[in-house]
Parts: sequence; C-alpha cells; structure tokens
Amino acid sequence: LIPVSEETANFHVSCEVNDALRAGKPLVALESTIITHGMPWPGNLEMARGVEALIREEGAVPATIVVIDGRLHIGLGDDDLAALAQTKDALKLSRADLAYAIAEGRTGSTTVAATMIAAEMAGIRVFATGGIGGVHRGAEESFDISADIDELARTPVLVVSAGAKALLDIPKTLEALETRGVPVVTCASETFPAFWSRDSGLPSPLTLPDAPAIARFQATRERLGIEGGMLVANPVDAADEIPRSEMEAHIAAALDTAKRQGIARKEVTPFLLSEIYRLSDGRSLATNIALVRSNARLAARIAVALAA
Amino acid sequence: LIPVSEETANFHVSCEVNDALRAGKPLVALESTIITHGMPWPGNLEMARGVEALIREEGAVPATIVVIDGRLHIGLGDDDLAALAQTKDALKLSRADLAYAIAEGRTGSTTVAATMIAAEMAGIRVFATGGIGGVHRGAEESFDISADIDELARTPVLVVSAGAKALLDIPKTLEALETRGVPVVTCASETFPAFWSRDSGLPSPLTLPDAPAIARFQATRERLGIEGGMLVANPVDAADEIPRSEMEAHIAAALDTAKRQGIARKEVTPFLLSEIYRLSDGRSLATNIALVRSNARLAARIAVALAA
Amino acid sequence: LIPVSEETANFHVSCEVNDALRAGKPLVALESTIITHGMPWPGNLEMARGVEALIREEGAVPATIVVIDGRLHIGLGDDDLAALAQTKDALKLSRADLAYAIAEGRTGSTTVAATMIAAEMAGIRVFATGGIGGVHRGAEESFDISADIDELARTPVLVVSAGAKALLDIPKTLEALETRGVPVVTCASETFPAFWSRDSGLPSPLTLPDAPAIARFQATRERLGIEGGMLVANPVDAADEIPRSEMEAHIAAALDTAKRQGIARKEVTPFLLSEIYRLSDGRSLATNIALVRSNARLAARIAVALAA
Ligand SMILES: [Mn+2]
Ligand SMILES: [Mn+2]
Ligand SMILES: [Mn+2]
Repeated sequence: LIPVSEETANFHVSCEVNDALRAGKPLVALESTIITHGMPWPGNLEMARGVEALIREEGAVPATIVVIDGRLHIGLGDDDLAALAQTKDALKLSRADLAYAIAEGRTGSTTVAATMIAAEMAGIRVFATGGIGGVHRGAEESFDISADIDELARTPVLVVSAGAKALLDIPKTLEALETRGVPVVTCASETFPAFWSRDSGLPSPLTLPDAPAIARFQATRERLGIEGGMLVANPVDAADEIPRSEMEAHIAAALDTAKRQGIARKEVTPFLLSEIYRLSDGRSLATNIALVRSNARLAARIAVALAA
Repeated sequence: LIPVSEETANFHVSCEVNDALRAGKPLVALESTIITHGMPWPGNLEMARGVEALIREEGAVPATIVVIDGRLHIGLGDDDLAALAQTKDALKLSRADLAYAIAEGRTGSTTVAATMIAAEMAGIRVFATGGIGGVHRGAEESFDISADIDELARTPVLVVSAGAKALLDIPKTLEALETRGVPVVTCASETFPAFWSRDSGLPSPLTLPDAPAIARFQATRERLGIEGGMLVANPVDAADEIPRSEMEAHIAAALDTAKRQGIARKEVTPFLLSEIYRLSDGRSLATNIALVRSNARLAARIAVALAA
Repeated sequence: LIPVSEETANFHVSCEVNDALRAGKPLVALESTIITHGMPWPGNLEMARGVEALIREEGAVPATIVVIDGRLHIGLGDDDLAALAQTKDALKLSRADLAYAIAEGRTGSTTVAATMIAAEMAGIRVFATGGIGGVHRGAEESFDISADIDELARTPVLVVSAGAKALLDIPKTLEALETRGVPVVTCASETFPAFWSRDSGLPSPLTLPDAPAIARFQATRERLGIEGGMLVANPVDAADEIPRSEMEAHIAAALDTAKRQGIARKEVTPFLLSEIYRLSDGRSLATNIALVRSNARLAARIAVALAA
C-alpha cells in the first residue's frame, strides 16, 4: 500500500488528515457519491459541510474521499468540496474501477466499496455513509448484487449506515452478509433499520447499546486478526423517520411506474428515487439528510472511542 | 494473530494443547456447538469425552474450542467440559460474532466457521465435526447459505465431516463449494455422503483412500501456498448408517410438519432434528454420535500423518 | 510460495521462462485445457505452437502451464507440448484439485483458475485464454458457477479472453464479476463480446483503446495494492466472427438436443461444443482458433507494455 506520507501524482492526503493520522487522532472517512449523485446542488454542499462540521464537533477529523482528475484525495478542503458539489458527469467508482479513474485521469466519486478501499489505504478505521448497497429486488433471477457486500467481507473498515438502501431486498441482503461472515450490529435497537424507516421488520443479527460498546467489539476483532469490515446500522431518529408501511407503498408504486415506462439499467435507481421524492412530498430527501448526519455523529463517536 | 504463548483475559490455551503445539505434535480441533446445541445432557458430555479419548488413542491431542465468559478457550479440561455440557443459553458463534461474544463477556459455542478461525489462530491444521453448514433447501429464493462455505474458501484448516448436514440442499452445497474453489475429498468412497447416510447419490468431486493420502494432498496445498481449507467427507460406517431413502422420507415429513405448524427462523432446524429423532425412533441421534466418533478418528489419523 | 529458482520434484520452470523472469522480460501464461480438452489432435498442437510463436513475435515469452506426472510445469519445451497434445485422460484442474494432481502424481491440464494460481506463483502477470468460465444457464436453479470468477476476484493476474464462454449466461456472469469487484475491460469496443461473436448485446463495464492503456490500468491497480485479477475482453476480428444471432440459434438447438438425449453432468459441455461444430459447419472451431491467437497477441502486447 501507498504510505500515507507519500504524495504522488495519483494520491493526495490533506494536511488535516495527515496530521490526524500521524497523531493517532480519530478520523471518519466519507464517501462522495452522495455528493455527486445522491442529492441536488446546492443542498448536497450544505449537507456535506454540515456532516464535516458534525464530525469535528464530536472530536474527530472528516476525510472525504474522491478521485479528481486521476488523483485520489483523502480529505478535501472546502474549495474542492464546493467544486465537487457542482461537478457533472463524475463516474461512480467501486472496487472494479477505482484504479481505472486514476489511470485514465478521470474524476469519480466513491461508493461504499471504493471508499472502504481508500480508507484502508490511508489507515482510517471508521466510515460514515447513508446506506450500503446489497441484494437487489429480483436478484434471484438477475443476480444483481452490489460489490459492497464482498467489500465488507474483505476490507477491515467499520461502516456506519442506516442499514441497506431500502430499494433493495433487505432480507436477502442480510442473508448475503451472513454468508460472507460480515458482522451486522444495530445500535440501540433489536430490529434492523430500513434506511428511511427505523424498523425493517427484521431482527438485527447483533445489537449493541452505544459507540463505546461498538468500538470494543471492533477493537476485539482487530486484536484477534479477524479479516473484513463490520456493518453498523443506525436507525434514523424517530422524529425524522418515514414509517416502513408508507415507504413500502411509495417503493411499490415507483417500481410499478418504472416498469410501465420501460426504465432500464442505470436509469432505474435515479428514477425510483425521484419518484419516491415526489410521492413523499420531498420528505424522502429530508430523512436522507437526517440519517446521514446521525450516522456521521455515531461514526465520530465510535472513532473517538477506538482512538482512546 | 495472537501468539499461542500469550495468555490474555480473552484467550486461553490449555497446557496440554500448548505443549503439543510447542512440540509439533498432532492436534485435532473440536467444535462446541454439538455439545451445547446438538445433543441433550448427559449424552452430550459422554459423546464429548468419548471423542477426546478416541483422538488421544490415535496419538493426537484434542482441542475443544469455546468462548466462556468472554474468553476464547483452545482446549478444555474435563471440569470445564462437564460444565459446558450443562450450559443453557450459550450463543452459537460464527465468523460474524465470535469477537462479539469475547468483547461482551458472553459464553458461546463455536460452529464450523468460528472453530476454523480459532484453530488457525492457534496453529491447529485439522478439525473434526459432524457435518458442515451449506446451502439451505429453498436458497434459490431465500438466499440462506451458511458462512461455513466461505470460511472453507479462506481459512487454511482441514475439516473432517460426514459431508454437509442432510437437511441442506446437498447438490447446491457441492456447487457452492466448487464455485469457491474448496477441495471436497471423500475418504474411500466414490460418492459424497449425506450425514446419516453413506451415499448422497452424488459423485464426490475427489476421492482418496486413506488418512496418509489425504495428508499428502493437504501438505502439497500448504507447500504450494494455496489459500483456504479442505473438506474431507467421511461416510459413516455401514453398520451405523440410516439409508438415504429412509432419511429423505423423514426429512420430507419433518419439513411438511414444520410448514403446517408455522415454525420459522431459528426454530426450524431444532424442530426438524427433533421430528427426525422421533420419526427414526432415536436412530438419528445414535448415527450422529457414531459419525462424530468416526470423523474424530479419521481427523486424528490425518493429523498424525501431517505431523510425521 | 515456491521461489521460481527452486527446482523440486513437484515444480519445474523451463529455462526460457526462468531466464525471462530473472531478466524482467515480458511473459504470457497459457492454459493447457484448450490443448487436452478443447481441440482435437493434431489441430490442437498446431494451434498451441502457433500461439507460442505469436507471443514470441510480439517480444514476450510464452509459459504454457500443465501438470505432468505430478509435476507443475511453467513453460513447456516443444517435445513436451507435442506429447501433451496427444495425452488422453488428462484431468481438468481448477483451484480445488491442482494440488491433488500434484500430490497423486497425475497429469492434468489447467483451467483458467488453476492457470492463474500457477502464473501468480511464478510471478507472471498476464495470461491469455479463449474464454473464461462463469455463470451457467439455469444457475438460478442449479447454482452452477465456475470457480474462475472467484479466482479473478482473488488472484492478481490479468486474463485476456474473448469474454466468457458463450454457452454461459453472459448477463449473469457480468453481474457476478461486478459483485466480486472484478474489473472487466473490453479492448477497443463499447460492447462486451460473446466468444465467437464480437457483440454480446451487453455494454462493457469498462473500455480502453489498446494494450498500453490496459497496462497503465493494471499497473495502477498493482501500485494501489488492490487485490485480485482483471478480465480483459478482446472481441474476435470481424473477419473471423460468427454473429450472435447465428450462434444463439446453434446454442439453442444444441441445448435442445442435449435435453432430448438426456445428456448430463460433465458430458454436457463437450456434447454442446460438438453439436455447435456440426451446426456451424466447422466454423466454430476456426473462430475459436482465431480468437485464441488474437488474445495471445493482445496479451503479449500488454505484457510488453507492463514490463516497459
Ligand atoms: Mn449491480
Ligand atoms: Mn443462515
Ligand atoms: Mn460447475
């Protein structure tokens, strides 16, 4: 792996992140797909700034990860963040194409899998996101399963999320995580969340009450030398959630519309999200922002506990 | 990894196992789920003691693996074994939650995946069990696949079993093992066994005649640096087997009853096993004990051949 | 891993390959299953000699990989190649049984997975083949998925192919590669090929224009320390291809005949290939030879670019 101190044409660690790494201070990695693909400008920039501020408030250092013109950045200054928030046509990078964007001098934002890889490279142990990718509805026929699950099985980074994206098949996603040996811990709840909703209707494989307990579990895994990452599920606050019954109705309606209109391939997910935004009168986006902020806060607390 | 010599609050290697490891003597790891969840007291204790005695008879040292009050034990004295056999509410630990039990100070028995991890940590190359987990019947819809298959693909421990548990979908389990690159060797038979039955009706991917040949194969894999474990299938003795036609009828009847009674989730497997016990007039348990003993003996012989 | 310089009873590196490795010269690994199982004698020998000559023409050194009488050969002299081309009953070796053949003193040709393992052992970074294994048609029920996909996910060798074998379910094969995080790059085409046909009807996950660009991508992956291999898809020359519409009709007819005649298990693939040979008036074999030659040439150019 590239040593953090090595500045190259392809690899840049911000001063703030570099100082934190050298001092053994807590860090939280952040993905950039949510900025370039997940929310419209200028709300995306406001969200990104807010999340970084929250992490600092909790005593940790944020490290937003992105590839700009073929250079992998670990930590982004505010100017770069503002520019990124207005970038069009950024690639969406996963394990398979992170190095492709670097080799070709392209700009690309990182999904969960690529952010985990970059975080591990830099020595960052905790990462906050919205929701992970997983097993798609209909995967028993399509075999469409995100690379995020395998990444969790192999790369030793703790990922704080509101569970899996609710467009996915959540029962099958939990099965795939179990098959791959990935710990799934819900914070302070016996049930696994469903992104916008606090409760997916499924029991969580594991439950721990708070950040220190989660940090103890992770530290034990590291000490035992057990490979791979951990998924921490953090149900959105009750005040911000949209209950599952309501969301499932929106998702079903959106899937139905997509089918009737013949939406296919890469257009499906953006189409579904915009339909759900419309059907929920914009509440889906507000909840998304709330859950990302809540995940950043929990991730920072876990990072602080791990560094203690 | 934790060096074997290091005694910590979380990790304990028995004197007998420690001496054997230092002296390069043959060892056989044993799982503990069969003791806490697989058989009722006091038969479970009798079985466990019998299996340890058999392994010693063959010139190897048994190492039962279990987490007691947050401490991972490699090798258990007879007092601890007797206490474990009467423990209620032990967790069933796999790759995902082995460190959870340790971090939380809980007691848990180890499944195949967790036992493999602990065996590798301690430097034990051979492990005897009843049957591995695999692809569940109906997995084409449920995606329910045990973490044991992935563990065999990644962790360099040789697992001696009577094949996969017969409640599983055995053809799909063999396919999943092939996909993951796991060698499946049946000892002295051209057909893969089905736990209680000598013959699953499926050809074994590989066949070797005896323990020395299996040890040579394993030693060659280690010398070539090929990652991952190996599944050795050991058909139960003909005198002890229940033929597949009979068992398949019991399994089908038990599945049918479970469906009619609405048994779900974690209750399914214990329910099916108790139904099969009833339908077979207790012979399923007798065969289970016989096959575990037979596997322990073969595992010890392989360990002796590997240490030679 | 066994050091290349170490000659053992189980491991032999040819002088030409050994010299190239020491001098840092470009090398291209070649599989042997295509010689023993893929084509009839003497056409197979002619093809193998032609491919080796092409690789030398491009300035690289060919390294045919095979197990003969329990010895793993990296690089084969012409006498051995001629003998291999007439060998009957060679095993077909994958990850699970490569060491089995070595331990048992058997002769076996290497599939994609086993060739990748041997190439990595020897330090060869590029490998040319016809088409990789993948997800079989009907795998949603059968779970029949080749070990080649997992090997690409774990072993750092670049594999040049004409895509996946066209008997497979190509959409599902691409999904499985994505799930496992394997880069799939088609050379100079936006669509993924279908072995005998230039276009599978599916967009390629990634596209690069030529060997130097592919080498830059691979070198970036190596520098970043990203695990696993890469699949390079190389559409057969237009002059040599059989269009997909024609091939799909032959494949459907062959599958239908196999079903009616009750062909099962290991007999299915050879039967389908011979039916397709008959239905295409021998053009399927001519195209197969053309694509292997084309892949060898591209692989050599990538190896030369990587070594520069
Ligand atoms: Mn997908
Ligand atoms: Mn399960
Ligand atoms: Mn297969």
